[in-house]
Amino acid sequence: MSGEDAPAEQQNAVDQKQETKAAEEPKAEPPKTEPAPAAAEATATPAAATEKVPEEDTFTYRALVLTGYGGYDKVKLQVKKGKPALKAGEVLVRVKACGLNFADLMARQGLYDRLPSPPVTPGMECSGVVEAVGEEVTDRKVGDKVMVLNRFGLWQEVAVVPSTHTFLIPEGMSFEEAAALPVNYITAYMMLFDFGNLRPNQSVLIHAAAGGVGIAATQLCKTVKDVTVFGTASASKHETISEGGVTHPIDYRTKDYVEEVRKISPKGMDIILDPLGGSDTHKAYNLLKPMGKLITYGTSNMLAGQKKNLLAVAKNWYHQFSIHTLSLIQGNKSVCGFHLGYLDGEMELITQAMNTILDLYKEGKVKPRIDSTWHLEQVGDAMRKMQERNNIGKVILNTEPMPEEEKKEEPKKEDKKKEDKKKDDKKKDDGKKEEKKDDKKKEEPKKEEEKKEEPNKEEK
Amino acid sequence: MSGEDAPAEQQNAVDQKQETKAAEEPKAEPPKTEPAPAAAEATATPAAATEKVPEEDTFTYRALVLTGYGGYDKVKLQVKKGKPALKAGEVLVRVKACGLNFADLMARQGLYDRLPSPPVTPGMECSGVVEAVGEEVTDRKVGDKVMVLNRFGLWQEVAVVPSTHTFLIPEGMSFEEAAALPVNYITAYMMLFDFGNLRPNQSVLIHAAAGGVGIAATQLCKTVKDVTVFGTASASKHETISEGGVTHPIDYRTKDYVEEVRKISPKGMDIILDPLGGSDTHKAYNLLKPMGKLITYGTSNMLAGQKKNLLAVAKNWYHQFSIHTLSLIQGNKSVCGFHLGYLDGEMELITQAMNTILDLYKEGKVKPRIDSTWHLEQVGDAMRKMQERNNIGKVILNTEPMPEEEKKEEPKKEDKKKEDKKKDDKKKDDGKKEEKKDDKKKEEPKKEEEKKEEPNKEEK
Ligand SMILES: NC(=O)c1ccc[n+]([C@@H]2O[C@H](COP(=O)([O-])OP(=O)(O)OC[C@H]3O[C@@H](n4cnc5c(N)ncnc54)[C@H](OP(=O)(O)O)[C@@H]3O)[C@@H](O)[C@H]2O)c1
Ligand SMILES: NC(=O)c1ccc[n+]([C@@H]2O[C@H](COP(=O)([O-])OP(=O)(O)OC[C@H]3O[C@@H](n4cnc5c(N)ncnc54)[C@H](OP(=O)(O)O)[C@@H]3O)[C@@H](O)[C@H]2O)c1
Repeated sequence: MSGEDAPAEQQNAVDQKQETKAAEEPKAEPPKTEPAPAAAEATATPAAATEKVPEEDTFTYRALVLTGYGGYDKVKLQVKKGKPALKAGEVLVRVKACGLNFADLMARQGLYDRLPSPPVTPGMECSGVVEAVGEEVTDRKVGDKVMVLNRFGLWQEVAVVPSTHTFLIPEGMSFEEAAALPVNYITAYMMLFDFGNLRPNQSVLIHAAAGGVGIAATQLCKTVKDVTVFGTASASKHETISEGGVTHPIDYRTKDYVEEVRKISPKGMDIILDPLGGSDTHKAYNLLKPMGKLITYGTSNMLAGQKKNLLAVAKNWYHQFSIHTLSLIQGNKSVCGFHLGYLDGEMELITQAMNTILDLYKEGKVKPRIDSTWHLEQVGDAMRKMQERNNIGKVILNTEPMPEEEKKEEPKKEDKKKEDKKKDDKKKDDGKKEEKKDDKKKEEPKKEEEKKEEPNKEEK
Repeated sequence: MSGEDAPAEQQNAVDQKQETKAAEEPKAEPPKTEPAPAAAEATATPAAATEKVPEEDTFTYRALVLTGYGGYDKVKLQVKKGKPALKAGEVLVRVKACGLNFADLMARQGLYDRLPSPPVTPGMECSGVVEAVGEEVTDRKVGDKVMVLNRFGLWQEVAVVPSTHTFLIPEGMSFEEAAALPVNYITAYMMLFDFGNLRPNQSVLIHAAAGGVGIAATQLCKTVKDVTVFGTASASKHETISEGGVTHPIDYRTKDYVEEVRKISPKGMDIILDPLGGSDTHKAYNLLKPMGKLITYGTSNMLAGQKKNLLAVAKNWYHQFSIHTLSLIQGNKSVCGFHLGYLDGEMELITQAMNTILDLYKEGKVKPRIDSTWHLEQVGDAMRKMQERNNIGKVILNTEPMPEEEKKEEPKKEDKKKEDKKKDDKKKDDGKKEEKKDDKKKEEPKKEEEKKEEPNKEEK
């Protein structure tokens, strides 16, 4: 494996070499007549750079960059140079924490169509402090603590986004919580309360109930009277999700969840949230009560192994659910598709949802559950934690540089990497089986503890 | 055309001949050991009949019976003999008025799968007075004024239904209104407030906005703040529907309604109610905003001409909308199917909806609009009124026997029948064109006035 493929976590020093092609920025490309983004320009147009004010030239920040599609090692930590320019309506945020989403895993394998081609900085949510505001920004000021939602580009120390994509962090919410909230809670909220029209006494089936969206959805269900939550999750997570509000936890890895649901609720479900896709969407449809709503919002089933698994992808396509109106009419059923990444033109709707969610937060009715927090250097391990089905709640990246002591332990992880490679080559078609075995191997939680013992900041 | 094909309206005396095969009853067939329904038995088992108490034997009532699939003349008025037996939980209702629904037109052509094969009594809603109650009925008593919802079998003077299918008529509501309410308002209510999740400031597209469901839906939209209603209807109805609450009436027969909607609301609609099917369902899907809901609930497009039009049916099938989850996800859209006829197992949901609707009625917020009322003998004309797109609101049948004077005018109608026949033979493929010409021919309204001038009851 070449040095170029080394994952971020294994780089003893961050990758300082300037890329001639800069990672795509989250904001719209500036018109050709304006100066090109500073990062791209730094070496390409040195003459122009020397004319700049010193700060613009000396300003550097670290950014995670997806350099190509593949395994965990495809996300690298790089240093960018030059302060990004602000257009009207934009703010510059000094990022403190970033949320990791399932879509980031898909994106790494080239399976997520809302991320531009590599090289590109992923990351659709973060929290931080406003460091500069562009013209026409009236609702944010320097120093505001904000959480940010964007199509991509937030896994870096500095991010420029439209101010409409930021939300003020309420009193008492940590940066970690703030980075964990936007995607999961807006998704869960809009699915349950817009498409789902959840009302008292109804029943809801939540898959991956111990995941980011799953926990958010469970908490939101509990804000409605007498809602019964059926939740699938790996067995080791059942205690936690029961405490969190799941009425009937189901181990989908050892049992047929459809049968389990029918045993308890023979008529089926009022609402089913389906992040799995493929044949699970069919199962969900058949499990709906009359007037039931199926909300499909993901294709987790496409992910099996560290690198793109063509069989899993093909299976998902092959089983893709398609429905005739006649069947919907005779069944009195509703099928909805949700994708926050395609709602970027609807910031008004999103802001409405966010305001309600923040009210619920302030009332103590919802609270993001953090599974673990990782340094940017550890993004590979962070992704692994989620992909190997070991997270309960949200996986967070924080932008504090990693202490030198931790870095020295890195070589250990090389073994694990080789192991991954073997694994990936051996079985490509059954993600579930693979993950079952991996359950025993619990290196991440240890590392997490290590890290938590050393919260001291250096550099910067 | 043989005498057997004469429509109900043209029978100078009602059809007294006993059918050996009785029209199917709305209730479940009694077990073989119980006495067979009186109507079927009357001539078939004369020995048994003579043993009965006089009332059971002499009890007769008029019933409309669909005798086969085809034109208006396939619905005949017959006399049935023998008092229907009541099972536990059932009530016997003396019917005063019945609602005519679009599905009854489809059913006559063999295009409605919730009506058993002929001979069968159609009719899914009526109003009347409880005349007897079966065992275990605690919520209804003799003398209660009720409206009734049933899968079929209500177009007759006497109907036996489960008491759970009846709803008490509120103070001040006429029998006509009560017969006009159940199907249209429950349908509109569940579509808008369950699947549609209608909220303030949203926009709704209602097709056939001057029809039964259309007017109910418009009134219900108006109970929510700042809802904009786009309504398609034949031009002559625009004034009425504007007064009723349609913000933007659109003449779909002379204009491209999609274009008209886009002109006013470029982003599209939040909710679209689609009773048309076929290619209009595709148009509706494309007209949805992100987070928009398409609720499809009919296939009016299948109906073109008095008898089954194979081309229209085939077209509708050919264009039947089918949707992949990927498209739903990328569009953030919802597609729902609604069919009250398949919700008969969900009387609890229906009763909840009905209670809310009746509250709105009492508050003066909704009120069925009666287009016209016809005698059972005139069922053919009543159906024609709707099928030729001339109704504004609900078409009602009442069970008062038709005065002799009116019957004597019948021969006039024979001409129209011949005309129908010619028309049907000539053009089978374009219902809309056909109906446009028919707009000029307005015999029904006249007849309606005649009828209203003679409300005197005879017989009975
Ligand atoms: N459409 C949208 O706008 C939107 C937004 C956010 C998330 N999503 C979707 O929602 C789902 C959950 O997302 P999330 O970010 O909250 O992640 P998450 O649930 O925290 O994801 C990890 C968990 O998913 C479960 N899982 C199921 N199938 C898996 C697979 N093939 N590989 C790995 N894990 C699998 C595992 O838990 P168990 O074994 O315990 O089930 C795992 O711990 C994903 O499908 C994601 O794409 C969609
Ligand atoms: N799924 C359910 O549970 C349910 C329940 C009730 C009704 N529905 C459906 O809702 C629709 C309306 O039903 P409704 O009972 O209230 O009837 P309605 O709207 O009063 O029906 C008559 C009107 O429909 C319009 N129309 C459109 N296409 C037509 C066609 N091909 N032939 C004749 N008229 C046509 C005409 O008005 P304009 O020319 O002015 O548009 C006509 O005046 C129907 O499709 C029906 O099947 C479904």
